[in-house]
Amino acid sequence: MDINIERLKSTLMELSKFGYREDDKGIYRPGFSEADFAARKWLMSIAEQEGFITRMDGVGNVIIEYHAEDVAPDTPAVMIGSHLDSVPAGGMFDGTLGVIAGLECIRTLKAQNIKLAKPIWVIGTSEEEGRFGGMIGAQALTGKLTPHQILTSHDPDGIMLSDAMRSQGLEPMEALSARLNPNLIDSFFELHIEQGPVLDQTGVQIGVVEGISGVFKWIVKLIGKADHAGTAPMEMRSDAFMGLADFAYQINRIIAEDGTDTTRITVGKAELKPGFAHTIAGEVDFTIVARDMDETVMENLAASCRKALSAIARKHKLMFEYEQVSWLTPMKCTPSIVEFIAQQAQKLKLNYQVMPSGAGHDSQFFTDITDTGLIFIPSINGISHAPDEWSHWHDVQAGTELLYQCVLTKAVNKN
Amino acid sequence: MDINIERLKSTLMELSKFGYREDDKGIYRPGFSEADFAARKWLMSIAEQEGFITRMDGVGNVIIEYHAEDVAPDTPAVMIGSHLDSVPAGGMFDGTLGVIAGLECIRTLKAQNIKLAKPIWVIGTSEEEGRFGGMIGAQALTGKLTPHQILTSHDPDGIMLSDAMRSQGLEPMEALSARLNPNLIDSFFELHIEQGPVLDQTGVQIGVVEGISGVFKWIVKLIGKADHAGTAPMEMRSDAFMGLADFAYQINRIIAEDGTDTTRITVGKAELKPGFAHTIAGEVDFTIVARDMDETVMENLAASCRKALSAIARKHKLMFEYEQVSWLTPMKCTPSIVEFIAQQAQKLKLNYQVMPSGAGHDSQFFTDITDTGLIFIPSINGISHAPDEWSHWHDVQAGTELLYQCVLTKAVNKN
Repeated sequence: MDINIERLKSTLMELSKFGYREDDKGIYRPGFSEADFAARKWLMSIAEQEGFITRMDGVGNVIIEYHAEDVAPDTPAVMIGSHLDSVPAGGMFDGTLGVIAGLECIRTLKAQNIKLAKPIWVIGTSEEEGRFGGMIGAQALTGKLTPHQILTSHDPDGIMLSDAMRSQGLEPMEALSARLNPNLIDSFFELHIEQGPVLDQTGVQIGVVEGISGVFKWIVKLIGKADHAGTAPMEMRSDAFMGLADFAYQINRIIAEDGTDTTRITVGKAELKPGFAHTIAGEVDFTIVARDMDETVMENLAASCRKALSAIARKHKLMFEYEQVSWLTPMKCTPSIVEFIAQQAQKLKLNYQVMPSGAGHDSQFFTDITDTGLIFIPSINGISHAPDEWSHWHDVQAGTELLYQCVLTKAVNKN
Repeated sequence: MDINIERLKSTLMELSKFGYREDDKGIYRPGFSEADFAARKWLMSIAEQEGFITRMDGVGNVIIEYHAEDVAPDTPAVMIGSHLDSVPAGGMFDGTLGVIAGLECIRTLKAQNIKLAKPIWVIGTSEEEGRFGGMIGAQALTGKLTPHQILTSHDPDGIMLSDAMRSQGLEPMEALSARLNPNLIDSFFELHIEQGPVLDQTGVQIGVVEGISGVFKWIVKLIGKADHAGTAPMEMRSDAFMGLADFAYQINRIIAEDGTDTTRITVGKAELKPGFAHTIAGEVDFTIVARDMDETVMENLAASCRKALSAIARKHKLMFEYEQVSWLTPMKCTPSIVEFIAQQAQKLKLNYQVMPSGAGHDSQFFTDITDTGLIFIPSINGISHAPDEWSHWHDVQAGTELLYQCVLTKAVNKN
């Protein structure tokens, strides 16, 4: 195994200077920002200096191609990809790790002049963090970006996607031209930090991701009666907050009865109205976000939440409304690729576990068009999207070695 | 029984025009506002026209005295009082009912020229609704207003009590001169709307109040860890909101084990931080407001809340802090007066029940210096502090007849 962790580290550190702010030590590289595009151009320039073919497609994805000698044109490519943009005040590993680890793979292959049967592409996708409500770069590559989305998407400040693209010299509708021909993709690999606590807490070095959990989000309203907290006896109340508390108390039961070990149900937002200490809450508006790897399980969880809320509303004399804001189907990584990555990890004697991803990633858009695999390394304390995001360099090394082993194995074989 | 409900109704309707706003049909007569003082001056002028002795004391309380013939000077007076100010967007019965019903009592006594042994005072207190954080008028009458409070109290907009008083021509420190000599008070009676649902829901016309519940208020912080709702498995979370939900679920058990039928515990305010649908709440700040008529019960409830919160914090891996913002002792109405009012109600064949008050009232400041009684009539749907506040006129009549009966009985007797 010959990847060069020092080279990888130094490139990642250089990249992290783009959009870095001294005051909060955070990285600000939102999609289509100046810092984002400065980073992309810098990455292309260093790759070109090293003799790689680079280009930026119509939506801002950076593509770095490595063609070993004697590879026939139009041979499907093994692709390695993740994103180069960051959330505001983000960390230096989220997304960038997968791109720079990909670069490290082809740097190693090139330096060793290893004979390959397939080209390898490293892709730094654009706008994965959802500034414009999607994963624009990966959607464009896989033909899932629509003209409607290009023309109507805007960020929380009201800036239109089309204007943000133009500000970086991109013609918005040209985003559609970024679509790859699926026949020219052999497989897609992504290395990413876990962004959760599982690997860090269990001391396992590698997560072989079985898929991205499906998720549904509800906005729920329980409506009772806002009474004076002193004058209304307990049994005469229609206390909306007590309805929410009863529901939250049922979450563990619902998971035990209908869920799996990949189920998560979260109430992360709740607003009591009017929200005064001496007034019984006449209304509570809250969110339910539920995830599982199996869509049938999701349906059962939804049914159980509905039943629990109906019963609770009756018990507390509340009205109950909910709106299903979103329902995203689970995306399964290719089972044979999950198995393949696990085998490579065993070969490298890496400690790994198969696990779901609760967060979305670029690779989820590739699962239906090519063999797709996603590898996690531990996030210290599970933290990401914050200046405190960090991963140990020995874990970065292990993840990159596994990525290299997978890509190498795929690319040397004709099939 | 000779009170004149039409006269009472028309006076109350006239009074309700002061501070009335057409847009939301609410009454805006906050303490020391222009509308508040216009109402006071109007009330004094009509009482004077009818031959009563009126004055405004140093804190803005309106005092209307009725001396029947042959009453010796310095005979302790039977007092009837409630407040003339309103909350913003309040209704037309809260406070004013007790004052105008008092006026109706002395109008009736005067018209019938009934021979009395004691003078009767009707008091329209100032600033009961807490604009400046107290019940300024009643505190001043009973010697419970301090120079510190006069000089430091301010309203939510930052307006100082002293400036508000000056704007109505009052010299702030003269508020201290409003103190009554307890030896000159025979007894204190207040008629008030219930501001709760009990009488309305049970169909009982009169509440004979045994006292004002004691109340404690805590501000509680549960601090966990704000994780990504997708990536953090259920068992690895420190979900602060789930801690709150567990506590709320225990409230009924705590009341069943340690409370009485006068116990109320309310969580009316809760803030989840950061409060995003896809983020586990890393902190939740909430209030607990608990009431009971018995201070020992309050202490037991507080101990049980503490125990429950400690156990829940351990279970959910949370830190737990709380601050006791206030602890107000229960105020008991004079037991012999509670009994006396009940007897008068029986005499009038009124349907009544003895009950606690969960809200504060002017009379609570009189309980330790004189015989004090408080009478409730039903609030439709328990509503007050809103334009929808209403009470049936037949209930207003019943309450006023009972008040008249009590005052008459007290005032004709030398003892």
